[in-house]
Amino acid sequence: MSGNVFGKIFSIVTFGESHGKGIGVVIDGCPAGLNIDTKAIQKDLDRRKPGQSKISTERKEDEDFSILSGTYEGQSTGAPICIFIANKDQRSKDYDHLKDVLRPSHADYTYMEKYGIRDHRGGGRSSARETAARVAAGAIAKLFLQTQGIDIKAFVQQIGTITIPKDANYDMNQDENIVRCPDESTAQKMIESIEHAKQEGDSLGGVIQCQINDCPTGLGNPVFDRLEAELAKAMLSINASKGFEVGSGFEGTTMMGSEHNDEFKTIDGKVRTKTNHSGGVQGGISNGMPIVFNVAFKPTSTISKKQRTLDKNKEAIDLSATGRHDPCVVPRAVPIVEAMAALVIADHLLLQRATKV
Amino acid sequence: MSGNVFGKIFSIVTFGESHGKGIGVVIDGCPAGLNIDTKAIQKDLDRRKPGQSKISTERKEDEDFSILSGTYEGQSTGAPICIFIANKDQRSKDYDHLKDVLRPSHADYTYMEKYGIRDHRGGGRSSARETAARVAAGAIAKLFLQTQGIDIKAFVQQIGTITIPKDANYDMNQDENIVRCPDESTAQKMIESIEHAKQEGDSLGGVIQCQINDCPTGLGNPVFDRLEAELAKAMLSINASKGFEVGSGFEGTTMMGSEHNDEFKTIDGKVRTKTNHSGGVQGGISNGMPIVFNVAFKPTSTISKKQRTLDKNKEAIDLSATGRHDPCVVPRAVPIVEAMAALVIADHLLLQRATKV
Amino acid sequence: MSGNVFGKIFSIVTFGESHGKGIGVVIDGCPAGLNIDTKAIQKDLDRRKPGQSKISTERKEDEDFSILSGTYEGQSTGAPICIFIANKDQRSKDYDHLKDVLRPSHADYTYMEKYGIRDHRGGGRSSARETAARVAAGAIAKLFLQTQGIDIKAFVQQIGTITIPKDANYDMNQDENIVRCPDESTAQKMIESIEHAKQEGDSLGGVIQCQINDCPTGLGNPVFDRLEAELAKAMLSINASKGFEVGSGFEGTTMMGSEHNDEFKTIDGKVRTKTNHSGGVQGGISNGMPIVFNVAFKPTSTISKKQRTLDKNKEAIDLSATGRHDPCVVPRAVPIVEAMAALVIADHLLLQRATKV
Amino acid sequence: MSGNVFGKIFSIVTFGESHGKGIGVVIDGCPAGLNIDTKAIQKDLDRRKPGQSKISTERKEDEDFSILSGTYEGQSTGAPICIFIANKDQRSKDYDHLKDVLRPSHADYTYMEKYGIRDHRGGGRSSARETAARVAAGAIAKLFLQTQGIDIKAFVQQIGTITIPKDANYDMNQDENIVRCPDESTAQKMIESIEHAKQEGDSLGGVIQCQINDCPTGLGNPVFDRLEAELAKAMLSINASKGFEVGSGFEGTTMMGSEHNDEFKTIDGKVRTKTNHSGGVQGGISNGMPIVFNVAFKPTSTISKKQRTLDKNKEAIDLSATGRHDPCVVPRAVPIVEAMAALVIADHLLLQRATKV
Repeated sequence: MSGNVFGKIFSIVTFGESHGKGIGVVIDGCPAGLNIDTKAIQKDLDRRKPGQSKISTERKEDEDFSILSGTYEGQSTGAPICIFIANKDQRSKDYDHLKDVLRPSHADYTYMEKYGIRDHRGGGRSSARETAARVAAGAIAKLFLQTQGIDIKAFVQQIGTITIPKDANYDMNQDENIVRCPDESTAQKMIESIEHAKQEGDSLGGVIQCQINDCPTGLGNPVFDRLEAELAKAMLSINASKGFEVGSGFEGTTMMGSEHNDEFKTIDGKVRTKTNHSGGVQGGISNGMPIVFNVAFKPTSTISKKQRTLDKNKEAIDLSATGRHDPCVVPRAVPIVEAMAALVIADHLLLQRATKV
Repeated sequence: MSGNVFGKIFSIVTFGESHGKGIGVVIDGCPAGLNIDTKAIQKDLDRRKPGQSKISTERKEDEDFSILSGTYEGQSTGAPICIFIANKDQRSKDYDHLKDVLRPSHADYTYMEKYGIRDHRGGGRSSARETAARVAAGAIAKLFLQTQGIDIKAFVQQIGTITIPKDANYDMNQDENIVRCPDESTAQKMIESIEHAKQEGDSLGGVIQCQINDCPTGLGNPVFDRLEAELAKAMLSINASKGFEVGSGFEGTTMMGSEHNDEFKTIDGKVRTKTNHSGGVQGGISNGMPIVFNVAFKPTSTISKKQRTLDKNKEAIDLSATGRHDPCVVPRAVPIVEAMAALVIADHLLLQRATKV
Repeated sequence: MSGNVFGKIFSIVTFGESHGKGIGVVIDGCPAGLNIDTKAIQKDLDRRKPGQSKISTERKEDEDFSILSGTYEGQSTGAPICIFIANKDQRSKDYDHLKDVLRPSHADYTYMEKYGIRDHRGGGRSSARETAARVAAGAIAKLFLQTQGIDIKAFVQQIGTITIPKDANYDMNQDENIVRCPDESTAQKMIESIEHAKQEGDSLGGVIQCQINDCPTGLGNPVFDRLEAELAKAMLSINASKGFEVGSGFEGTTMMGSEHNDEFKTIDGKVRTKTNHSGGVQGGISNGMPIVFNVAFKPTSTISKKQRTLDKNKEAIDLSATGRHDPCVVPRAVPIVEAMAALVIADHLLLQRATKV
Repeated sequence: MSGNVFGKIFSIVTFGESHGKGIGVVIDGCPAGLNIDTKAIQKDLDRRKPGQSKISTERKEDEDFSILSGTYEGQSTGAPICIFIANKDQRSKDYDHLKDVLRPSHADYTYMEKYGIRDHRGGGRSSARETAARVAAGAIAKLFLQTQGIDIKAFVQQIGTITIPKDANYDMNQDENIVRCPDESTAQKMIESIEHAKQEGDSLGGVIQCQINDCPTGLGNPVFDRLEAELAKAMLSINASKGFEVGSGFEGTTMMGSEHNDEFKTIDGKVRTKTNHSGGVQGGISNGMPIVFNVAFKPTSTISKKQRTLDKNKEAIDLSATGRHDPCVVPRAVPIVEAMAALVIADHLLLQRATKV
């Protein structure tokens, strides 16, 4: 398949554009006999949807999805599951002024170079709207993971220059606030910071941390399909992401080996490590400790501040975007990070079944 | 294929263990009619090989490779190219004391959990020796890229806490020193730092930067197979790597959108960007600017300092490794980073040929 | 992907059940810039649809399809193209009496064994209705092939014991009659034969021949992905197919090598063969001669004659099917054979672009 | 991967040419913990090797193989298994006279068209020698199948016009004679027929039947990856094969549905069918009955009788081949058919593990 497929056994293909009829996903390889809890899908779609709070875009999208195939009496049948989300509230006219513009740090230019044809309305295929399809598929992957006792949770760790302090004491699993940062005092500063950027017609980036708990040992492969490599690909495939690190990550590069090595010990007869600089993965394979990784997101490219750029004829022009857009996509990216992580783990859980005679 | 394959069209499968008969790679999809310059392969193997300088392991491996298939009169024929490197100077006995030990931050424990069987000698398949096969394949990918005018160059940017200063003035393409850092004064400090770690029986990590120049526009896909996602997977599949960032990366998360956006302009009639925070990729597709990314490597897990750990029976023991090992693998990882980058770009160059009618 | 994907570059995934919301297909890898002629898609869907003549089932399905994604102003954009065909005129009640029955030579039993769950209505995923999705995708593949001057044409060569005589003189490309056999006098006998089987509550099988003309040389691979191997897989993936042969096929096994070998000669300076026992493929690769192959179809499993079988509890029962069904699916399978052939050739045309430096 | 890979989980890539250093295979996805019985590998290689009897080529190849990776103390480790067979007794000079000839019904012409470069010695990659690699891999797949109680057995059913009579009474599993036909009186006629063809400088084709016994229910998929479709691809990927049929095959196309349908019944409480026209597969999925299929092989293209053909410059010439070659490859193809069947079943056994929650 050609760039729109993710996964080997539990695999998905997404389709659709932001300003076409809708977006969708086909999940091929979901095991038969899974209870498909539609509320769980809706919940994650709602966590991703635009217009959900004062710090997100004003563009509202009620994500009403249909399951077009693959279930019978509420259970997966082993057949491909297609989920479709029709587009609504598309103001394609909003994009008329962008028809001939190469927006800075968008895909306008590279699309034309790649395909020679481009749907300028809302970014077409490179629109973040495509990620709704991933979230729907990821919700089903999560349902499968729940049957195996595995839990995935992401949250916002940094917005612009505001970060959760190292010594903060918070519960990752508490109810989410609108910025999806579990440390309340940091969250408050983040919200203010986003509101300020919005007023300025500017935008902010940030970092999401994700933790996968109770993942069994043995997932992932020693060479190319290392679990962290699969996660890295999954995360860098999300719009606006610029970096990935697992365990100690970039900071770990400054440590000595003797500090960094995770000493083995036993807890209740189980093999565990004293520290978790490995981030739950050793030699590409899960070791039973929490899998912990961070994903970097750049500030949103769409800003209303005036910018200098080119049009299609390579003439210099001024651009002031007028569409509705997010001053910071990081809070809405939390369920996307979780979805992509769930897809990776579900795939490797199934692959692992083939490892031994 | 099951975790030992990389790439779709220009694809490779590697095989072999550090203490078996040797290691090898099959390249399937190398275009026919490529001049296979064996000196170029040898050169990159030599840049990766152990024992090449005072800051690397004392274990010597002369990497004598054979091309077992796929060429005729010095040219690729379109058939799979198999390259084999026989093992020599393996002191398997050196590993006898490790037979029952779960070395901290190695793959010993996860291997047993995954496969239920393990070749303890030298790490088996998770040994860095496997990367020689990648380097050989990558050298052929580079030869293909050269026919398209594309250049890939990686170098060491950071070792432990020593980094090339932001205002340093250096030529990335000068002859490599033993630490492969192009800024000579920084290189000197790095070398000292590694020598010190070696004396202490300890180890260091670091960061490699890679630049891909003169890459055509249009490579990569907008959704899952974004060029940066493919590179991220490639890099995180290298032993000891813990992070990846493209363009502005993690640092870019602290910038405002108006700072971060790369303004379009023309140079000699060509579309270029004023800054390159995007790192040469926009919307997952190359934009003709240099592709720039960093890879984080943890300090080597094998140290001779005494460590606390478990044996196979989950009994606590003390471990002092005695095999020959690198105090810092980062300089030797430079050609590996280049090889994996070359494989990604070669694959996407070929995939791109199918994009338009 | 898990069994519902076909093709590597020009690839499809189908989804949907006969008695769910509908069926669909996602085409990933259709080159950008192709004019998507919706009439051509409709025409092939109409050739496949039930109820199109007196010799087909009475069940009517007007195949109204929607293109949900991947086109802009009538052209492919390089993004995945999703086509959806909503189900209508499903009389799910017709299948109530089959809920607990293992119908002979259907997939009822094997489905339960494989998945442990089964939608009994209309065969679910194993219904021939799924092939409408393939026909829609194949129609787009054909449009691509037309831009390359390649023509694909299948027809009915045999129904039951009635075959086109070896010395018959007919034009393969004339307008299709209802049985899709280009030899009129044979066609008449076939139609009578099918009508007779229908009256008896019985069913017939047959053979379809397919010819691919003006296919360029060089498509296919020498080893596993031989062009005939890809076609064989494509054809055996069609419901009710039981055999495939290319060129001289099974009959060729009785010839001597000196008879069978296709002597090379030139026509207008082009390399051609005197005979075409090879069927247009030599060493797995197209040689520029017409690609000719046959596909065998068993008699339809659904018959209204009383049969002995088991129910879900393994109790012996009598079964007399009452749903609407085809006494012979072969005429309706003609566009399916063409569609699958078109998908194979389109894929290999694109793959071939990567073969040389 | 690019045409040299077969299988998804239990997958192989082959490499090597008939007149290069040797041929080999990498098996990626063999489950860990399998006892690798090297005698079983040797036995199947010997059944395929040239020069094994008076009816095969006089070219002798002692197939001495090395396992280069993937085993430890006689067991598979889960790492890729590379098997290499060095070339010996290659008389490349024998092929000098063929350098500029397009041999009829060989791959000479199509190779040049595809790749623009060709190793003329012994057919290069399209040589049947490549199948030794498949046989080695298939032997390992068989070892895995044995642990699951599955047995695969092929035999020669037809040579030229000589076929096992329908009413013959023979034991498929008796020791093989040199023509590998289990019906002794038919075997004798076949041997004479091949000897006669050899004297004439001509060649013969034939048909191989393969049976897979005790295959569990549930293997295969309902749509593209139907078990018979996978087998069809596997078989048509073997050199000189021209056709495939499963169960009733082409003959079944002349039957009525009421005759053809396989009535379900129980034997010892197990669901079985009275007849086996389905050939062990229904709806693409194994039903527990023997899987039975036939493969058609054309007469060998290499004959010493004088033939008319073209040279590279498209000039007409006479050709009389002088190399050593088989008058009939069918007996030697028996272990190849078994090997490819074993690879398909092994792959689907592993894939099936991921089907249910």
